[in-house]
Amino acid sequence: MLTKKINLWENNETAFLSTYILDNSDELHPNKKRPAVIICPGGAYLATSDREAEPVALRFAAKGFHVFVLRYSCLLKNFEDFDLLLEEGSLPEINKNTQMPQPLYDLAKTFLIIGQHADEWHVDMDKIAICGFSAGAHLTASMGVHWHRSTLKDKFSVESSKFKPAALILGYPLIDYSLTEENSRGDEFTGKLFEFSRLAHFGEKYPSKEKMKQASPIHFVSENTPPTFIWHTDNDELVDSENSLAMGLALRKKQVPFEMHIFENGVHGLSLADEVSAGDSTYINEAAQAWLPMALKWLEKQNFTL
Amino acid sequence: MLTKKINLWENNETAFLSTYILDNSDELHPNKKRPAVIICPGGAYLATSDREAEPVALRFAAKGFHVFVLRYSCLLKNFEDFDLLLEEGSLPEINKNTQMPQPLYDLAKTFLIIGQHADEWHVDMDKIAICGFSAGAHLTASMGVHWHRSTLKDKFSVESSKFKPAALILGYPLIDYSLTEENSRGDEFTGKLFEFSRLAHFGEKYPSKEKMKQASPIHFVSENTPPTFIWHTDNDELVDSENSLAMGLALRKKQVPFEMHIFENGVHGLSLADEVSAGDSTYINEAAQAWLPMALKWLEKQNFTL
Repeated sequence: MLTKKINLWENNETAFLSTYILDNSDELHPNKKRPAVIICPGGAYLATSDREAEPVALRFAAKGFHVFVLRYSCLLKNFEDFDLLLEEGSLPEINKNTQMPQPLYDLAKTFLIIGQHADEWHVDMDKIAICGFSAGAHLTASMGVHWHRSTLKDKFSVESSKFKPAALILGYPLIDYSLTEENSRGDEFTGKLFEFSRLAHFGEKYPSKEKMKQASPIHFVSENTPPTFIWHTDNDELVDSENSLAMGLALRKKQVPFEMHIFENGVHGLSLADEVSAGDSTYINEAAQAWLPMALKWLEKQNFTL
Repeated sequence: MLTKKINLWENNETAFLSTYILDNSDELHPNKKRPAVIICPGGAYLATSDREAEPVALRFAAKGFHVFVLRYSCLLKNFEDFDLLLEEGSLPEINKNTQMPQPLYDLAKTFLIIGQHADEWHVDMDKIAICGFSAGAHLTASMGVHWHRSTLKDKFSVESSKFKPAALILGYPLIDYSLTEENSRGDEFTGKLFEFSRLAHFGEKYPSKEKMKQASPIHFVSENTPPTFIWHTDNDELVDSENSLAMGLALRKKQVPFEMHIFENGVHGLSLADEVSAGDSTYINEAAQAWLPMALKWLEKQNFTL
C-alpha cells in the first residue's frame, strides 16, 4: 500500500490528502483499475477528526478500494485547540481562507489529483465515491449537488465531468443550515460550536438566511446528483436527523436512487460505532455498526466491484 | 405452541386471529409474561396476504414472543378472487362492512381478546407490538395514532389504555392517501388495484380529498404515538417510499423515537425478502433481508425481552 501525504496547493500545508493506494500485483486483479473512496472526516469545519479518517479508510481499503482521506481547509491550525476554542471562548491561531467554496475547491482538486495519477495508481475514475461525516458529509453533499455547475469548471478550467462522483455516502450530514438554528440543543457548548463553525464556513458567526440557504445542499438536489447512501441516528443531539430525512425526500422527488438508515439511538459522531473508531464507550453502538456493511453492499450495487 | 383460529365477532367469520402462543414451561422462563406481536398482513384491503402472515409470525415466535396474525375485514370473500378482480374488472362475491373504521375495530378487538386471556396465555399487555405491511401497515399506523382517541373508547366502552401498542413496525406502509393519487404508476393494474382498495376502505372508488385526509395517519401523529420502526424500498413501484419519509419527519417533529431503513432496490411486498416468504425470485432481496434482524434488535431496545 502506498501511504503518502499530498498537499493540495502550493505554499499551503493546511489542506492535504492521506493516501491508501493498494498495490498492483500480478496475483491480484493485475492492472485492474479499482474504484476509489474519498473520505471527508467531520469536525464542524474547525478541524478534521481522526476518528472519521484512518479507521474508516481501512474498511474501504480492506474491501479492495483505493482510499484518499481529505483534510480540507478548516479554521484551526492545531487540532488540539478544538477543546480550547470551545472551553475558553478565545480564538487560537486560525487559518484564513477556509470559507466556502474553499473546502469544495479542496475536494474538486482531490478529483483532479487522483485523475492525474489514475494510470499510475490504477484508479477507475468513473467509480469515485465520496464518504463524509457531519461537516464532511455537508462537503460531500455539496460536491454531489454542485459538481456540474460552473463554479468548479470556471475555477479549474476543466470539464465538469472531471468532478463527477459516482456515489455519495453521508454519515449524520448537515444538509440544511436553517436546521442548525431551529434544532441545535442551544446549550453553551453547542452554541459556541456552531458559532465558530459558521465563522469558518461563512467568515462570520451570524450569516444572513440567504447565505445559509446558498450553503445548504438541500436546495440544490437535482437529477445530476449521484446515488446516495445516508445514515443518521434519530436522536443525534448535534445535527438533527431531520437533515437526512429532508435529503431523502429531496432525492426521492428528483428520482435519484438512495438508501437511508436512521438508527433510533446514538450520539453525534459515531464513525464506525465500534471499538476501532470509538474515543470512549459512548461511541460504541451495536445497532449503528450495521451502516458500514450495508454501505459496502450498496456500493456493490453501484458497480463498485473488483 | 397453541395455534388456533379465533373469530373476532359473533356471526362473522371474515375477521379472525391465528394464534402462535408459546407454551409455558417450567424449564423456560416459567410463568413469564412474554411480549407479543400482532401481525397485520398487507393486501390493499382486498384480502390479507399469506406471504406476510405465518412466515413473519414464526420469526417473532422464534425470538420468544407470542404472535397473533390478524385477518382483518377485507373486501374479497375468497383470496383466490384477487387476481380475478383485477384481471376481469368484475366484482366477485364481496364482504360488506369492510369500510373504516371496521379494520381498526378488528385490531382494537384483538387487543381486548388478548387482554382477556393475558393470564392464561402469559402475555405482558404492556409489551404488545403491531407489525404491519402495506395496507396492514396503514392499519398498524392508524392504531398507533388513534389508540387514545374517543372512537375506540366509545365503541368498546373501555379505557383507551387497553388499546395502547408499545411499538409499531411498518413495512412499506401507506401513510398518506394523497400520495396514492400522485405517485401510483398509473398503469391499468395499479389503477384498478387502488380503485378497489378505496372501495373497500371508503365504500367508494373516488372518495373526497377530505375523506382521504381523515384516513391518512400522517395527519394524526402525536406525542401519544408509540416508538416506530419503518422500512421501505426507495423504488417501491406501488406504495411510494415518500410515505415512509414523511412518517419519519412527522415522528421526528413530535419527538417520537423511531428507526427507519430505506433500501435502494426492491419491489413492493417483499415481506421477509427471503426464500421463506418469496412467491418467486423477484421477492428475494439480500439487502432488504436486514430489516428483520434490525427490527428484532430495535424491539430489544423497547424492552421486548425475556
